[in-house]
Amino acid sequence: MTKTKKEKKPVILITNDDGIMSPGIRQLIKLMRILGDVVVVAPDKPQSAMGHAITIATPLRLQQINIDGRHIEYSCSGTPVDCVKLAVDKILFKKPDMLVSGINHGSNSSINVIYSGTMSAALEGAIENIPSIGFSILDYSFEADFTPCEKQILTIARNVLQNGLPKGTCLNVNIPKIEKIKGIKICRQAIAYWDDEYYERKDPHHKSYYWLTGEFINNDKGKDTDEWALKNGYISVVPVLYDFTAHHAIPYLKNIEE
Amino acid sequence: MTKTKKEKKPVILITNDDGIMSPGIRQLIKLMRILGDVVVVAPDKPQSAMGHAITIATPLRLQQINIDGRHIEYSCSGTPVDCVKLAVDKILFKKPDMLVSGINHGSNSSINVIYSGTMSAALEGAIENIPSIGFSILDYSFEADFTPCEKQILTIARNVLQNGLPKGTCLNVNIPKIEKIKGIKICRQAIAYWDDEYYERKDPHHKSYYWLTGEFINNDKGKDTDEWALKNGYISVVPVLYDFTAHHAIPYLKNIEE
Repeated sequence: MTKTKKEKKPVILITNDDGIMSPGIRQLIKLMRILGDVVVVAPDKPQSAMGHAITIATPLRLQQINIDGRHIEYSCSGTPVDCVKLAVDKILFKKPDMLVSGINHGSNSSINVIYSGTMSAALEGAIENIPSIGFSILDYSFEADFTPCEKQILTIARNVLQNGLPKGTCLNVNIPKIEKIKGIKICRQAIAYWDDEYYERKDPHHKSYYWLTGEFINNDKGKDTDEWALKNGYISVVPVLYDFTAHHAIPYLKNIEE
Repeated sequence: MTKTKKEKKPVILITNDDGIMSPGIRQLIKLMRILGDVVVVAPDKPQSAMGHAITIATPLRLQQINIDGRHIEYSCSGTPVDCVKLAVDKILFKKPDMLVSGINHGSNSSINVIYSGTMSAALEGAIENIPSIGFSILDYSFEADFTPCEKQILTIARNVLQNGLPKGTCLNVNIPKIEKIKGIKICRQAIAYWDDEYYERKDPHHKSYYWLTGEFINNDKGKDTDEWALKNGYISVVPVLYDFTAHHAIPYLKNIEE
């Protein structure tokens, strides 16, 4: 049997929240080109901690750019979620076969998922019924070494392309900063939080301003959590859902009804 | 028996995403003053659709303002989530007894919860273990009539002050725009979405810019949903959780592990 027709490659939409020129997204583009036809629509500037923000009171700009000439690439003036929405409606004119976001410079494990622009882009993909993955590495450095995790990123992405994901979910993938990765663990989000502390400074006019700082507190000792996996040398994969209903809490609240 | 000591009133933190001068928050302040000692920390400008964004790359400003002189009030340069974090760390120096956010001008039912600054403030409260409620009315007008729902807002807030909320949850309360409210229903979030359409315009330099528009699509016919309750004249109350793990999906993904 001879193949007479070239097999159609899957279309993979790539975005992030660190901005289109960050090393993390460059690495993800390189890897995804092995699996499919890549279209990049990413913020023109850093958009970290933007959560699920969208731009409604101002219009958006798109700028086609040409970095290596081998795939379509646009920088967008909006948030990561804006990038996904605009890419589907005005660049692809259809849903891509997969959406990947990242690789974020810094952890999006545990409670960080809620603040993360990287993961909000993936969640927006899930809302739009696109199999979606957010990738993050526990290394803020723009010189982060991505080589130890290349194989696993491809394994996860290939699996999602092949099998899809359970309805209403996307994947939150976090990668430890180590040379030898032990494996991949499917986890739940550790129930942890940030103990915030604002540093107060005075401007030259003696008025106060405040910088957010904080300490990450994890009292969740579960070995099924993303924090446990990451501390023990594994890549953590948490399925994340956009139905925020606390279904288990509904019966306890019936006394409010009238 | 005579009461010799004045009973200590609960401390209620109020914020929103429409900005500190919007009628919705003024109404909420008026009602919460019936139940406790009110502290207001709200954005100095509209912050709608900001999701769970926080400000990390720039510092924040706080400005004490005096609107009616009967309670503490600050405007903040940040997002709704920033307001909650800053209020707890730098104004209250402790957790309040309850956090209420809103009353938002416009619906935060169904999938809107994920984009909503109002609800992100309430979720941030839940993360910080504060019993928290987001209120929204299905009326964008700044002349919205809040009188039909005053009684129910007090009922829900009193209940939460008295009984607290299940761990890890807050309430998403949406109020229909009608004169006679039928009652209060505890609901799940309807599984609906926005069908986005960007309108393209040309600037005077012939460059394109894009405005987000969209149609809300609800194919979820469940009578236990917030959309059903609102369409049938009830206030919808959805318990919302900040553990985004799709626990039911974990077994289906075990084949990715290695």
